[in-house]
Amino acid sequence: MNDLLPEDLIVNAKDEVAIRKHLALVALGKRPADRAVRVGRLFDSYGRKWHEDQEVVISGRRIAWVGPTGQFPGEVGERVDRRHLSALPGFGEVHKHIESSHLTPEWEAALVLPHGCTWTCEASHEFSNVNGSRNLEFWLTARRAGSPAKIFPLPGSAVPPTAYEWGGGHFGYAEQTEFLRDNLTVAGLDEVMDWPAVWNPENPSHDRLWGMIEATFAQRGVVEGHAAGMRAIDDINAFAGAGMASDHEAWTPQEVADKLRRGLFMELRPHSLKEIISGLIAEGQDDWSNFALCTDDRSASDTMKLGATDHNVRLAMEAGLPLEIAVQLVTINPARHMRLTPWVGAIAPGRFADLVLLDDEKTLGIAEVWADGKQISAGRTYIAEVPKIAWPIWATSSVNIQRQLTPSDFAIAAPAGREKVNAALLRPFHWHDDFITSKLSVVDGLVQRDSDQNITKFAIVDRFSGEGRTAKMFWLGTGPKTPDTALACSMGHDKHNIWVVGSSDDAMALAVNTLTEIQGGWALVSGGKVLATVRYEIGGLMTNRAAPELDREMLELYRQGETIEWMYEPTFSPRWWPGFPERLAFATLTCSPWRWVLVAPSPLAPEGFVNVSNGQTHPIVW
Amino acid sequence: MNDLLPEDLIVNAKDEVAIRKHLALVALGKRPADRAVRVGRLFDSYGRKWHEDQEVVISGRRIAWVGPTGQFPGEVGERVDRRHLSALPGFGEVHKHIESSHLTPEWEAALVLPHGCTWTCEASHEFSNVNGSRNLEFWLTARRAGSPAKIFPLPGSAVPPTAYEWGGGHFGYAEQTEFLRDNLTVAGLDEVMDWPAVWNPENPSHDRLWGMIEATFAQRGVVEGHAAGMRAIDDINAFAGAGMASDHEAWTPQEVADKLRRGLFMELRPHSLKEIISGLIAEGQDDWSNFALCTDDRSASDTMKLGATDHNVRLAMEAGLPLEIAVQLVTINPARHMRLTPWVGAIAPGRFADLVLLDDEKTLGIAEVWADGKQISAGRTYIAEVPKIAWPIWATSSVNIQRQLTPSDFAIAAPAGREKVNAALLRPFHWHDDFITSKLSVVDGLVQRDSDQNITKFAIVDRFSGEGRTAKMFWLGTGPKTPDTALACSMGHDKHNIWVVGSSDDAMALAVNTLTEIQGGWALVSGGKVLATVRYEIGGLMTNRAAPELDREMLELYRQGETIEWMYEPTFSPRWWPGFPERLAFATLTCSPWRWVLVAPSPLAPEGFVNVSNGQTHPIVW
Repeated sequence: MNDLLPEDLIVNAKDEVAIRKHLALVALGKRPADRAVRVGRLFDSYGRKWHEDQEVVISGRRIAWVGPTGQFPGEVGERVDRRHLSALPGFGEVHKHIESSHLTPEWEAALVLPHGCTWTCEASHEFSNVNGSRNLEFWLTARRAGSPAKIFPLPGSAVPPTAYEWGGGHFGYAEQTEFLRDNLTVAGLDEVMDWPAVWNPENPSHDRLWGMIEATFAQRGVVEGHAAGMRAIDDINAFAGAGMASDHEAWTPQEVADKLRRGLFMELRPHSLKEIISGLIAEGQDDWSNFALCTDDRSASDTMKLGATDHNVRLAMEAGLPLEIAVQLVTINPARHMRLTPWVGAIAPGRFADLVLLDDEKTLGIAEVWADGKQISAGRTYIAEVPKIAWPIWATSSVNIQRQLTPSDFAIAAPAGREKVNAALLRPFHWHDDFITSKLSVVDGLVQRDSDQNITKFAIVDRFSGEGRTAKMFWLGTGPKTPDTALACSMGHDKHNIWVVGSSDDAMALAVNTLTEIQGGWALVSGGKVLATVRYEIGGLMTNRAAPELDREMLELYRQGETIEWMYEPTFSPRWWPGFPERLAFATLTCSPWRWVLVAPSPLAPEGFVNVSNGQTHPIVW
Repeated sequence: MNDLLPEDLIVNAKDEVAIRKHLALVALGKRPADRAVRVGRLFDSYGRKWHEDQEVVISGRRIAWVGPTGQFPGEVGERVDRRHLSALPGFGEVHKHIESSHLTPEWEAALVLPHGCTWTCEASHEFSNVNGSRNLEFWLTARRAGSPAKIFPLPGSAVPPTAYEWGGGHFGYAEQTEFLRDNLTVAGLDEVMDWPAVWNPENPSHDRLWGMIEATFAQRGVVEGHAAGMRAIDDINAFAGAGMASDHEAWTPQEVADKLRRGLFMELRPHSLKEIISGLIAEGQDDWSNFALCTDDRSASDTMKLGATDHNVRLAMEAGLPLEIAVQLVTINPARHMRLTPWVGAIAPGRFADLVLLDDEKTLGIAEVWADGKQISAGRTYIAEVPKIAWPIWATSSVNIQRQLTPSDFAIAAPAGREKVNAALLRPFHWHDDFITSKLSVVDGLVQRDSDQNITKFAIVDRFSGEGRTAKMFWLGTGPKTPDTALACSMGHDKHNIWVVGSSDDAMALAVNTLTEIQGGWALVSGGKVLATVRYEIGGLMTNRAAPELDREMLELYRQGETIEWMYEPTFSPRWWPGFPERLAFATLTCSPWRWVLVAPSPLAPEGFVNVSNGQTHPIVW
């Protein structure tokens, strides 16, 4: 590529002009091309058609020309023969939290690109909530350093997730306007989750949220929705009427049908897509143009086992979609929905030269992946260089607790003179209008856990103020039964304070102090010892290491977790199972279905126990 | 609707917030709705499915709720029973020049709404070229006055059409930025036609055009293309790589297939869509999600005979598409392509309450059309009020010629002392690299027409400077053979100066002077008399009258035209036929296929005769 041309890493209008002027001249044969990749078959995602024996002509990171082999009129620097392979466009994720891989973007790229995923609409409410002002800078850093993964960040709508939380970031009209204006790489507003704040003018987050929506409309961005558990037709109508463009939380074919016909673009996730797709096919669905597949959350360990976007495509094929439609659901459809068609979604001129080359169409066997015009994988091996990024201190120092916690931080005092108290209880994924109550004993003025009742203690520790303020209460059916044991984690959706669950206050303090030391991740402690840690030193959410290294730490955590006896009780989520309670990281969600939750102490919820649908608070014992 | 709510005529982000907050409350039954329309069947354009016995609940101009009859939880002001009808979403035009109807927008609405067309992406390069600075104001005036037609203007890229033309308007980066910024109703950049200016950095329009493209990218607008006659694969690749998002100029299935697979959204026009659709179906095309139908140009007279968008849908059905897909091509597909899904394209909450109610699905029999939540037609009759608009002087006074033209304005002098000269000739739609030449006689120093050679005189008269400067030359195979006769018109694509063709210079002067008097339209003169005029007093392009009135004038023009003997000679366009040369209004196009043309005298083409592909000029006689 001409040295005078832009580097073409972060999409922006000015560079587009220079790049596209150049591409037109290359296509006309008036300037030389860098490379031509000859493939046996090429999939046209716009028309859903295959073309035999084609050449993809590349200049810089983009496609300049595509057509029958031998017909390109210009000079070509290098010719690559892949006649034995079939080419698909690079796969895209319409809704994914890269944070959930727990890898920094350059390492996540090394993990998912060999699986075909070359671009991601980053649902950035995790890092947004940890460091809102650095959010865009964070997501573009790896790309600026040369990573071939295209990340299109959508600033989190849930910053803070509800009005009862604070710290890390605060996004409203002004912030969203700044994100979108002159940042073409920002596609819109990430999943609007706080439905009570959207519909209810009395909700303290109402104005902030509508400010973000207004800014997104004004800048022609996409307002992504999140309608978990929303199945009532009136709610769905209200949700669509409020301007939400999509949902990715539906579980059943009926729910999908009800949402689709109200004009919501449907983003299907792996844990429900097979049932949804086969169910819809059985009901005669044959137009899939308003559907996409999305990963949402997947850990590096799971990606190593299952795959990335390719896994989702294979599930869709197993559910009955032909390869061609399944591929559209991760290429042209999400690109069109997100208004990113000039850059991704097709093997067509002007788009980034991202190719998924198959050696087996039936099984979606991926032989090679190309991105930015270069081969970046052979089989499952990433062969491109991973840029070395020295993440700055605002990324590496995000667990701000300026003291050692002590057991007393987790003690729950009883009202004076009582031997028994009433306690408010939650359990993971307790999607019920009311909290649970129970009677608990008092010893030395302090309310006690009761493992016979399957009750232990759960706390949220603020990691933004420096003071390490704690909110704590009793929870049912989770956490260690083994004495003097605690599990803590700095990933706690969506505010990402530290959550800790433990059978003793000593263990809880040790677990949190351990996390402060390593600046986030997981800590499992028992009998006064640290059994295992997993380090998420970037934002307390991710690590700047290769997936296998992180996986080894996770496996050790699981192994140590097996030495512990864990409480369990079924609950509303189908994804809550016995054993090591990894999904507690999602059990602290304050968004849908918007019931009683525990948050860090905040002005509107001083003890942290609050009903986020209406702001009601309640004592945790009485 | 609540009096405190916005009027909801011109879409903008601030009003969207107020409207959508309100719609959500209506859907939840917390505020009363205005109206509920019960229909026998309702078409879901997102999922391509029918639903039986449905209710569309309306608040203000929008849909608040849609679902099975009887299930809406809230109060309803008025219930309307249309159980015997089937509901489709309001039809949209992805690319139409309302100017070509020659009606002002409020009267065009009265004409096309009964045919189902409730929204239009206005390809506004005609009025843009006449009065660029008032362009947006012009297109929004009828809507502001209450017209139920939703117009989404796309500022013309061709302002001026080429660098060899001037006057009326000049759009570049700054103007396009201003159009798009804070005007959500502006969808993008209208058809980029000047391909030589796009690819060729030496072209004097190159920077202006790329300035508009850059501004459109920066504001997340859509860059519409125009690739007439472009069939070479290299050109198509270059065109797509340059960032064009669409084409509406393809004529054959092969051309469509070649463009579609390079990532161009295909907009099919009525004169070619049947061949294209049946041809593509024969080749196995079954994904139509990147297709739309569009009218482009259609006169009021033709719409009265053929229909509007409904005519296009019927043609698509005749070509083999089922109703459901044909309807998607004028609803969700163009809405999605133009990024207008929050407002149009589906019978879904948040969208304008525009319904096309059928009494016959097989023939697309339209019984009623609703727009903005109200019934606006019964059968073919428009029953809403047409707003009375007193168009301001900048609209009514656009033919700026501050003097009477005389025969000498059209005289062509021979080089001194010559009895015969060489003359450069054009003919309508002469899409050849070179102009034609011939020998013509000289009388009294002036070069003469030669009807034996089928040659007459053609001129372009500038209507912007006030001076009425003329460019003239000899043309082949068009214009009156009858002596002392001329035809003039102020619609002359795309600069819309006055063109005049005549068998005498006297007649040419009279025709143009007549047009100046009536401020634009058509004038046919013969033997010193005005035989017929058609008045386009708005911008010299449109009239502020009902379609039947205009039609009567047109019919009289045709009738008088039949008294004249017209020259004819076949040429490259399949739409150029013998008789009254109405299509001369398009034979002055300076865009594709970019060859030798005649323009008004301009700095880069002082005599007006110029090859727009490279700027070459040539004497008209020598």
